[in-house]
Parts: sequence; structure tokens; C-alpha cells
Amino acid sequence: MTLEFFRLQTREEVLALYPRFMPVGVEEVDLAAALDRVLAAPVSAPEDVPSFPRSSMDGYGVRAADTFGASVGAPQYLEIKGEVPMGAVPQRPVGVGETLRVPTGAMLPPNADAVVMLEYTAEHPDGTLEVRRPVAPGENLLQPGEDVREGEILFPAGLPLRPQDLGLLAALGVTHIPVFRRPRVAILSSGDEIVPIAAKPAAGQVRDSNAYLAAAQAAEWGGIPAIKGIIADDFEALKSALAAALKEADLILISGGSSVGARDLTLEAIKALPAADVLAHGVAIRPGKPTILAQVGAPPLPLLGLPGHPASAAVVMEVLGKPLLARLAGLAGPSPWGGEAKALLSRNLAGASGREDYVRVRLRTEGETLWADPVLGPSGLLSPLVKSDGLVMIPLGVEGLLRGEPVRVRLFSPGR
Amino acid sequence: MTLEFFRLQTREEVLALYPRFMPVGVEEVDLAAALDRVLAAPVSAPEDVPSFPRSSMDGYGVRAADTFGASVGAPQYLEIKGEVPMGAVPQRPVGVGETLRVPTGAMLPPNADAVVMLEYTAEHPDGTLEVRRPVAPGENLLQPGEDVREGEILFPAGLPLRPQDLGLLAALGVTHIPVFRRPRVAILSSGDEIVPIAAKPAAGQVRDSNAYLAAAQAAEWGGIPAIKGIIADDFEALKSALAAALKEADLILISGGSSVGARDLTLEAIKALPAADVLAHGVAIRPGKPTILAQVGAPPLPLLGLPGHPASAAVVMEVLGKPLLARLAGLAGPSPWGGEAKALLSRNLAGASGREDYVRVRLRTEGETLWADPVLGPSGLLSPLVKSDGLVMIPLGVEGLLRGEPVRVRLFSPGR
Repeated sequence: MTLEFFRLQTREEVLALYPRFMPVGVEEVDLAAALDRVLAAPVSAPEDVPSFPRSSMDGYGVRAADTFGASVGAPQYLEIKGEVPMGAVPQRPVGVGETLRVPTGAMLPPNADAVVMLEYTAEHPDGTLEVRRPVAPGENLLQPGEDVREGEILFPAGLPLRPQDLGLLAALGVTHIPVFRRPRVAILSSGDEIVPIAAKPAAGQVRDSNAYLAAAQAAEWGGIPAIKGIIADDFEALKSALAAALKEADLILISGGSSVGARDLTLEAIKALPAADVLAHGVAIRPGKPTILAQVGAPPLPLLGLPGHPASAAVVMEVLGKPLLARLAGLAGPSPWGGEAKALLSRNLAGASGREDYVRVRLRTEGETLWADPVLGPSGLLSPLVKSDGLVMIPLGVEGLLRGEPVRVRLFSPGR
Repeated sequence: MTLEFFRLQTREEVLALYPRFMPVGVEEVDLAAALDRVLAAPVSAPEDVPSFPRSSMDGYGVRAADTFGASVGAPQYLEIKGEVPMGAVPQRPVGVGETLRVPTGAMLPPNADAVVMLEYTAEHPDGTLEVRRPVAPGENLLQPGEDVREGEILFPAGLPLRPQDLGLLAALGVTHIPVFRRPRVAILSSGDEIVPIAAKPAAGQVRDSNAYLAAAQAAEWGGIPAIKGIIADDFEALKSALAAALKEADLILISGGSSVGARDLTLEAIKALPAADVLAHGVAIRPGKPTILAQVGAPPLPLLGLPGHPASAAVVMEVLGKPLLARLAGLAGPSPWGGEAKALLSRNLAGASGREDYVRVRLRTEGETLWADPVLGPSGLLSPLVKSDGLVMIPLGVEGLLRGEPVRVRLFSPGR
């Protein structure tokens, strides 16, 4: 057991290393399965929506000019020439002084340029329509291309698809769409004290909880996690488990033992992988200092070595793992999962000298004020994380934050 | 085509109808598949975590009293009696003036009540440890039960599970867990003008986009959607399609035609279902007035009739469908999907007389200010919804909101 000194890199320095990792490949999915998936190519509109002039009200298709001057006291009268059936082409145009009934969603007849709403009319037994209000040209209808114009670029590549995006794509007849594959995330645990969660730990042993935490985070952020089990603190075992993961994953997470010895072994095993390059060993965040980022194999895949303390591992995943997954997933913007809330800090907080400090907080509403209550406790504990809604960061070089200061809370996803 | 008058119910009145619908059944899932699932029973801790006194630092297990008074100038000296291996039981206790090496995560030897960090020590060749700083009892270790106490209630029923919750359950050896089934959502579309999205619509026809929008919303909020296709505007066809859906779903959504005639037919078909009771027909929200809520079958299942305009359907799903899914999914609190942001309104907005008005907005950051820019456009259009990040509600009885007023934006999920 020897003392270990890190050459700490800042979070920004680590994030600046990510562009070397390329988004995973592309696949085509059915539109019904495309929610939350990330577009791999821009989408432009293959046609106009709507493709025909469409009534947006139940009423009467008219030449707007025929209604000008109409009022309750002095209605205009038009001759009803029939009805446009839903989904069909009108059988005749609208002549001067004429009208056709048009239900909501029906096609406007030729020469009609507006729809008078049912509410402002009365049908007389002789087939005459009384119009009590004028309409302007274009009123109560959707023009062809008013929603979307043919050729218009609708979505850039790198965008995660939301329900309304899928609705618009459906309206355009897009049944399949190219998206980035979901990154496959292999999760390895190492440490002689770790046992599977189904086991009853003997004295001195603990269950493999970090793998489940990291797997769920990866899944939450669009990855496909695979829990690969526990590897003994043994160089050959670690190396071969990592090499196997390298063949089938897009990202390797290894949750190392927290002891210096276990970390050393993990680091040696990583360095023994093909084309291995340790890019960062020690990050200036608290908790989470003993984090490893490496590139392994060719083309280079990222490997993230997570600290053993659960709160440290969770913070490293939030701060470094989430943007890494976003990069691999082809997201152009920031990760869409987990938002931010503005709150007031409810007590003084001292920062971590020389490191960005991530403090777990619980949100509490009091009247109109949202308070962030720090949830303190050693990073070896899980329960403070469970009691928290998100993290408040005390920046590098800031000695602390005062009670009542406004803070941005990085919310865990999903919320509660 | 006859004029239709609704007896509008408020949103609150409609939400107050939901308790009659019972959460769907319970299933047991593997912990690795439990993310976002809703607990069907409270969970209490079957054991202490940690189950033994655990070092949280690389260092030396000591009797704290032996270190009192230690300093760089006047260190204390202890006799090193060996090391505690990871995952093992210490071979001997710590006697007065003695110490054992304890890596992070290792079990503390009997009689040791603190850990001196490696940083504040030096090992001498004769097996003596120089201690340069005192430690208090309990320092640098986790006590048994410090994270979680046996019998402690950890999670109430009705809670959606987050990554850290799964981590804690894994630490406790919980491999399977009872959760509510995900509600099955049958989505039917009606309207003679509607064609499948793979079809090329003839003039006057449009594609079935609302089904894809509603299905994705249901999936986003924990449901399992099934798109059941398009039913002709025909009473018998509608009735038999609804009866079939009733047999295999926990919630039926029917996206009706927007015309009065189509709505009348849909309503008649709903009323013809077994044990049908139309609970609401017309809701005081804009867009979304022509919404139907019914209970059908026994025990009663909810049926939500969505307006035909896409923006109306999307808003009704957000405002009424999401809490309905939350109820069926057994969620005790509000739906965890989609958050809220506080922003300033960037222009004056007039409300909808007699209805709650839901205005689509796009968020824009300018300096430190978050602006909500209204995205206007008829509710027959999809593109304003695509351009928006969320909704601002103008309450019933409020004539409008002024530029610069602070507003709460109900964010669409997932965010961007």
C-alpha cells in the first residue's frame, strides 16, 4: 500500500478529449420505435403538409368576398350546392354566391378561399345559407404547405426524437428512419471484496451495487448496458475480461476497487489492452478523483474507470459518463436527460480546495421558494444519493457558497 | 352537420374522476430491468448496510486514543501487526499501541475504532508506524448500518425507481422486485380521411400522424402503446374495434375525426360498449375542448377520446393523458417525466375566454434570462409543436399574460 499522487485534470480537460471517440454506427428503425432515438441524418420534407387546402372548422366553403359586409342585422345569403365528403375531392367548384358544406379536415372546393364557421350561419329550408359574419380570405383553413413546405429541412442530424417529431414524420409518410445505434455499455466490477448481488456476503464482503447503479444510468441516457460480473483482483483475469468487453461494447465501464492496490491493478490491465492510451488518471472533481479515462483498441473506444465509492461513481457517471454517452450516441446538443432547476442554497457549503465539488441536494418548496438542502455524508454511502434530487456544483477556485445563494441544481433523471 | 354545444368540465373536474380507475396489476422484475418502474409495495431494509465496520480510506486501523496528541513535530508510534486483506475477516484485533493496514473498503479489525489516512503516516523499516495526525473515534470508517439500518423503510409503494435506488437495492441483495405492470395503451384512429402512414394520400386524405404522436407520448410516460390502425367512420366498425381493444388494453385512446359528424359517431360507439359511462364530453381547455372521457367495461377502464387536431391531441395527452397514465401505473406522486422551468414571457398573450389556455412556447436564453417565446399557429399544425419546448398555461378567468411576466413552462419530455 503506497501513497498515490494524481496529476489531476479538470473536467473541461477531460471533456475536450471526447471528440476522438466517434459516434456508433447507424441503423434504420420503424417510426413507432424511434422515440428518444438520435437522428443520424438530417430530414427534409418530401412533400407539402397539408397537401391540399383543408378546412380547420366545421362550416361552409365560400368566396370570402361574398361574405364581406355580412352581419346579424344584415346577413349575406349564399346558395348551398352540396357537401364535401371527408377524404374526398369536392365534386364542384364554388361559384359566385355559392357555398358547399365542409366539415373540419375536408378539402376546400376550388375557388373557395375561406370557411365560415357553422356558429355564424343558418341553413334555410330552401337551400339558402344565411351568413352573419364576414370572413377574410384564408380564414379557418390550412393552406397547402402551411405546416411544412416540400424541401424544408425539418430536423438536423444529432437530434433526439420526441413524440411531436414522430407525429410530423408520420404526417410526411416517413415510416423508417436512420438513427444512431444505442451505444452498448459493458460494465465490469473488480475487487476481491465484491460478491454478486444474489449472494449473502461473508463478513468483509459487499455486494456489487455499483454495477447496477451504473447500468441504470447508462440505460437512462440511451445506452444498452450489459453487466459483465465481477473480476478478481488479478492482472490476467482483468486483462482478459477487458479484452472480451472490447470486442462487444462501444463503451467499457470498470468499477474498480477503491483501494490503491486494486486501482493499480486495474490501470495495469487497461494499459495491457491493444492500442491502449490512458488519457486521464485523476480528475479534479469531488467526489470522483480516482477516475480513469482511456482509449483502447482501434478505432479507439472509450474506457471509463469509475471510483469504488458509490456516490463517487454516480457523480463521475453524471459529470463525465453522460456526456461521453451523448458523444457516442451522436447527440449534437447536450444530453436531453435530466434538467436543471434554479434554487436557493439552504446552508453554507465549503468547497473542495483544488477540485470542482459536487454536492448532493434535495429540493424543497417553501411558499414560492425552491430550496436546495445539501444531503451530506461520506461518498461510501448510497442513502444520501437516494435522498437527493440532484447535484450542486461548487466551481474550481470558489471557496464555498453561502446560505441563500442562488444555485443551479443538475437534476437526476428521471425526476420524482 | 349540426351545431354542437358542450357542457364543459374543468381540468380539475376531469382529474377528480380518475380515482375510480385502479392501478394495473403487479409483476416481479429483475433488478437490472427495474429502472423507471413503479414500486408496487414498500421496501424495507432486510439487513444493515454496511454489515461490518468498513474503512473508507487507505490507511491504518487504530485505537483512536493511541493517536491523540500526534503531530508532525511529535508523532505517535504504533506497531504494525499486519494487513487486513480485501473481503476477508481480520486475523487479529488491534491491541493498545498496535495497528493493522486497512485498504479502502476493508473490514476494521476488532478494537480499532478509527482509520489513520496513509497521507499522515510513514512506515519505518522496523515495522513501526509513524502517525503525524490524531484521529477521532469513528473517523474514516463507515459504521455498520450507517448507510441503511435493518428494518428501515427505504421506499414507499408508488415510487418510480432511479439508478441510485437500484444501487441501494442491489447493495441489500434485492434481486427481484414487485412493480406495477406498465399500462397497455390501445390507440385507435377514426376518420374517413385518414390513411396509414405508409400510404400515399389521395387529394383530401391525410396520414394517421396522431396515432404516432400519442403512442410516443404514452411510451414516454411508462405505457406500452399498441397502434391499432384506422377505423372507418362507421358505427359497427368503431364499436367492434373498441370492444376488441377493451379486452387487451388498460387504457383506450381514440383519436377521432375532428368533424362534428365523426365525433358524434365515436361517442355513439363508446356508449354502446359494455358498462359504458361517458364521464366528460367537452373540457374547458384550449386547445382540446372536444375531449371525451369515458369508463367502459367492468372493472372500469378509462377511454380517452382525443381531438383530431394534432396540437389539441398533444395538449390533451399532456394535461389529461399523462396523469391518467400515472394513475394506472400506480404512481403515488406526480408523473416524473417532463419538468418545469421558470421563464419570462416574451410577448403579451390573450387567454381563451372560459377555458384554460395552453400556449406552446420555445425557450430562449439571453444572458441570465430565460425567455418563453410563444409559438403561435392553428392547432391543426404540427410544426409549431415541433418548434416548442413546452406549454404555458393561462388559467381560467385570467384574461391574459403580459410581456415580462414570470411563467412556469411545463416542459415536454424528453427535453432538448
